[in-house]
Amino acid sequence: VGEQLAALWSARSIAIVGASTRDGTIGRRPVEFLRRYGYRGRILPVHPHATEMLGLPCYPRVTDAPGPVDLAMILVPAAAVPAAVEDCVAAGVPVAIVCSSGFAETGAEGAAAQRDLVARARAGGMRLLGPNTIGVLSIPNAMVASFSPLFAGGDTVLVAGPLGFVTQSGALGFGATSLAYERGLGLNWVVSTGNEADASALEVLAALAELPECSGLLGYLEAVTDLPALQRLAATGTPVAVLRAGLSPAGARAAASHTGTLTTADRVVSAVLRRYGVVEVSDVDALLDVGEAFGSAYRPGGPRVGVLTTSGGSGILAADAMGPAGLQLATLAPSTVDILRSVVPPYGAVANPVDVTASVISQPAMFQRCLDAVAGDPGVDIVIACTGVLTAASADYIVSNLDGAARRTGKPVLLARTGALHLAPTANAALRAVGIPVLPSPGRAVRAAAALWRVHRPRPAAPEPAGTPVPAPRDGAGEPELKALLAGAGIPVPRGELVGTAGEAEAVVGALGRAVLKAAVPGLLHKTEAGAVALGVTAATAAAQYRRLAALGGAVYAEEQVGGGVEMLVGIGTGPLGTVVTLGAGGVLAEVLDDVAILPAPVSPDEVRDQLAGLRVARLLAGVRGLPPADTAALVDLVVHIGQLVAGWPPGFELDLNPVTVLPAGQGVRVLDAAYTRGG
Amino acid sequence: VGEQLAALWSARSIAIVGASTRDGTIGRRPVEFLRRYGYRGRILPVHPHATEMLGLPCYPRVTDAPGPVDLAMILVPAAAVPAAVEDCVAAGVPVAIVCSSGFAETGAEGAAAQRDLVARARAGGMRLLGPNTIGVLSIPNAMVASFSPLFAGGDTVLVAGPLGFVTQSGALGFGATSLAYERGLGLNWVVSTGNEADASALEVLAALAELPECSGLLGYLEAVTDLPALQRLAATGTPVAVLRAGLSPAGARAAASHTGTLTTADRVVSAVLRRYGVVEVSDVDALLDVGEAFGSAYRPGGPRVGVLTTSGGSGILAADAMGPAGLQLATLAPSTVDILRSVVPPYGAVANPVDVTASVISQPAMFQRCLDAVAGDPGVDIVIACTGVLTAASADYIVSNLDGAARRTGKPVLLARTGALHLAPTANAALRAVGIPVLPSPGRAVRAAAALWRVHRPRPAAPEPAGTPVPAPRDGAGEPELKALLAGAGIPVPRGELVGTAGEAEAVVGALGRAVLKAAVPGLLHKTEAGAVALGVTAATAAAQYRRLAALGGAVYAEEQVGGGVEMLVGIGTGPLGTVVTLGAGGVLAEVLDDVAILPAPVSPDEVRDQLAGLRVARLLAGVRGLPPADTAALVDLVVHIGQLVAGWPPGFELDLNPVTVLPAGQGVRVLDAAYTRGG
Repeated sequence: VGEQLAALWSARSIAIVGASTRDGTIGRRPVEFLRRYGYRGRILPVHPHATEMLGLPCYPRVTDAPGPVDLAMILVPAAAVPAAVEDCVAAGVPVAIVCSSGFAETGAEGAAAQRDLVARARAGGMRLLGPNTIGVLSIPNAMVASFSPLFAGGDTVLVAGPLGFVTQSGALGFGATSLAYERGLGLNWVVSTGNEADASALEVLAALAELPECSGLLGYLEAVTDLPALQRLAATGTPVAVLRAGLSPAGARAAASHTGTLTTADRVVSAVLRRYGVVEVSDVDALLDVGEAFGSAYRPGGPRVGVLTTSGGSGILAADAMGPAGLQLATLAPSTVDILRSVVPPYGAVANPVDVTASVISQPAMFQRCLDAVAGDPGVDIVIACTGVLTAASADYIVSNLDGAARRTGKPVLLARTGALHLAPTANAALRAVGIPVLPSPGRAVRAAAALWRVHRPRPAAPEPAGTPVPAPRDGAGEPELKALLAGAGIPVPRGELVGTAGEAEAVVGALGRAVLKAAVPGLLHKTEAGAVALGVTAATAAAQYRRLAALGGAVYAEEQVGGGVEMLVGIGTGPLGTVVTLGAGGVLAEVLDDVAILPAPVSPDEVRDQLAGLRVARLLAGVRGLPPADTAALVDLVVHIGQLVAGWPPGFELDLNPVTVLPAGQGVRVLDAAYTRGG
Repeated sequence: VGEQLAALWSARSIAIVGASTRDGTIGRRPVEFLRRYGYRGRILPVHPHATEMLGLPCYPRVTDAPGPVDLAMILVPAAAVPAAVEDCVAAGVPVAIVCSSGFAETGAEGAAAQRDLVARARAGGMRLLGPNTIGVLSIPNAMVASFSPLFAGGDTVLVAGPLGFVTQSGALGFGATSLAYERGLGLNWVVSTGNEADASALEVLAALAELPECSGLLGYLEAVTDLPALQRLAATGTPVAVLRAGLSPAGARAAASHTGTLTTADRVVSAVLRRYGVVEVSDVDALLDVGEAFGSAYRPGGPRVGVLTTSGGSGILAADAMGPAGLQLATLAPSTVDILRSVVPPYGAVANPVDVTASVISQPAMFQRCLDAVAGDPGVDIVIACTGVLTAASADYIVSNLDGAARRTGKPVLLARTGALHLAPTANAALRAVGIPVLPSPGRAVRAAAALWRVHRPRPAAPEPAGTPVPAPRDGAGEPELKALLAGAGIPVPRGELVGTAGEAEAVVGALGRAVLKAAVPGLLHKTEAGAVALGVTAATAAAQYRRLAALGGAVYAEEQVGGGVEMLVGIGTGPLGTVVTLGAGGVLAEVLDDVAILPAPVSPDEVRDQLAGLRVARLLAGVRGLPPADTAALVDLVVHIGQLVAGWPPGFELDLNPVTVLPAGQGVRVLDAAYTRGG
């Protein structure tokens, strides 16, 4: 798949359909930019009657241009795009970049026109980028196939570097690209995907990830729906960070009007991205900061950070940022502390964060000694050094000291440089050259380091199959039927049975002891609110309760009443990103806490435990106010098991177990209620 | 108070105690910097035997220098500082900056030495800055009274501007200052307060706030304990933003070792800062971003934001950032939308965020028309314009359009410019000159605008007195006594009384109906866990329960059992920042939710309602799963009332009402348990 899209950055010839002879027009710019930046391929302007443009021969149609044509840019008005696409197909062009606007982002009619474009391209075996894209930049072959104003600037500098950036929004994306270049962060490949009628951002990322010279990828995404592309991308092992937009309801509405796409539920996307090791950030700087981190010459072996600072304040800010970012402040070995104590003045600090004070920074040998001690500590996985103002006088040895420590230990070393760049203007470039990421504040350095750990941390092993898939329930299956199915699959439910008469209710309740009676009314989802549940029923009250519930219509079901547990909810369902399991506090707490973990299926026990620990309800499960700890192990089993159970079910279902009561440790769990629905 | 500290920025003469004749030493730098940057006052180097330094006459002691000496910098080793302080006192110096390290930050001995310094200074009527500070910068009189390496750079530029910056950490603070100057943000006054043995950062901020030419203040704070200074600062009305450090346990430990100060509980500080209109941020960039916002020539009249963007992606990111920052996306009037529809192409968007598309940005008249329509909309309080790459070609009219819209409407207009500065290098300065803040991403622009709204939003009116203060309980007062006190003050508690015998218990419970029996054992705080509470007691079981509870030692108390409410906790206590009320979910939920609001007393009903609405438990109070809404009005009354009740109590107490049950609307609240403790 990636091979065909590779024309986006490796084209040796490019046709510009809609090339213009008039200065300043959108149709003129790509031709001008390809010339100006020295494109290493053939430029083929297509114009209905011009014969020459900027010294280049023009062609009336793509089919008239000398082939092979590796790539076409289409810049004609929306109405003329279908014919241009047909022309490209006829000329055997593998990929066309449709820059023209006026498609899905304008409404239903535009969306239909967009589907038509895709149909024409697919019929001809051609891939489409866009429509509504501002194009592509590929520095290795100096290909500026874009009309972004970025390239019009007289002093625009393109900074080469082994990162790629794929952006759904062109203007924002090329703006962010200019910020990357301004800070010296190289991006060899920048692709704006626009409406993503055909090629999705994830697909382009996956294709870039296959380039051996690409060492990291950044993305700006509004919609994430292409699960196979995400899986291909993850399989390459290339580090990826994405800035996601449209997460708020207001943002989602704006996104729908922007590129005509619908966003997938925020938390599901986050869970799926996390599963595949993709880092998510929420602002432009943070995205570029992760790009800096991807430049590290070393990979972290764990999340434990040693902080070495010349400014106490920086150390405190780094410490504050650690936990929220998912990293830990390392505990230094006594031998490390001894070395530090012999060097650091009494007004510094020898515990992590280590404050060597400004007096040590002017003494390279002492600074080096502290740095090596911290970096060499076996309890340290990542080193973050922090400075305030860095002057040209000290920059050289700081760079060589940081480089030396990283080389000797093989651990990532990052610098938080909270000071103006112009005071030591070459320091950042020198640091980048040796693979030491540099960030402008302690907090940003910590978050960048955290991203580096997240992309490189070992992914959870593929989970062991647990239990056996069972056939899907029939549509409209009620609680008793679902419980029977679950019980058959080995998932614990309370003992119980259907009761057909008041007398039967009396007998069954008598045998169960304290019982629950429920009316199983088809289509009734909120049983408690509807008065369809009777708790604490005894043999004495069973007949009366039976009659009341039977009058609601539907069968009546009696089961043992199970009390004294923590109520959880476990849901499982399918969407565009596959099957996901939802786990959180059940019952009333579900509405108060809004605190669920989402796990893409299949799930491993480690993952469930990990996610469960992050929920607020974990405190209840651990036992508060003298209550015994709950049987978390049994809950983990249930979640793993349920993920396996539904393996063969046709997509579009939702199975909700709510509540699942988690009894005290050793007593297991019970599914107290179950509901099954199938989407339209 | 501020007058004396004003010498820190208005000194017309400065003595440098510990001035050095050797290049590159810390004692040399301030003399050098005062000369280099053209200090507009007399420089008085103090040196035991040198007679001349950098062309300036030297003096053996401060008392030998020609007076008046407005300010002294002390740079001698710790052991020599007391004598230097005495000398300054003798010379009548109003303020001394003690740069020397080796005091509280080194441990107990250093802390004692620091106390001694303060005692000497106070005895002589002199104020101290530091110790352990790297000094002060005051651009208006070109006074660089600091040894920060920032001023050693050959190409350091000091940028004048009406903001002040006070920083507990010197190295981090001057590093951040250099970043401000690099982005063109002017800071006229920078004061590093170090250990704050005498003058606190809040006190220095309050003194700066009194300068008529100071229009905004930034701070980096590790400890916030000086409530009177905060109140003086707030009274000036000057906008203030602070970066707080040491909020995490690890950060707090590092802070203690950094400047020898202890931090106050994070959430109490945040609540008190919020009460006084001080904005809190969590990183260096965010602090400087708020500084940019303070440069706005206009103040927002509300939180409703109109977003106008040339890039759909920027609009989405702005929309996403809005809610978390505390702002709202404005709903545009139909007449505004009509104007926009007549201008914006169909592939743009006329709902807020308004996407005028890149095609409009090249047409100044159309861009202006859209901007004026959005800014003029009566539902819009703040305008945020977003661009991607801004080129020199379009910068001029963007600046004049934004300026025009702000002038015509009197509303703040901010620009989110997600693009490299060098592509239109003068644009930011031009925008700043007309009071249009410019930020490098939509999210950062939204957060800066939110800070501008928070500092200018009307503060809550001083609350009406509610109820009457009552005398404090006696030390060791138990639940029955506290409830009697509360009931006497008009706070609802369940009916109940002490019972002295099993027979009395039977009789009282018989009269109450379903009752609770409790053992009031002195010092027993967790009654339920200790088995000291019996619920659902009836006349039939009263005697037996009485005997069981009486056996625990202490009195037995019977009261009506009140059920069916939402359990909350209300606490009130005093600390260095005054009296604060804590409000949150009570009972088991308290431990699961960790979700409390903190309100400095006295509290107004509006404030309680506002804070209550932000709690998760608000969903329970609103009524979930068919339950009726709870009597929130009665809860608000209780909280307001309790704040008034304790007005005369001596500091150091804590009164916890937990749980307070909030019954269905109209049925009020009841304090079910109360505990009172006094700190050591």
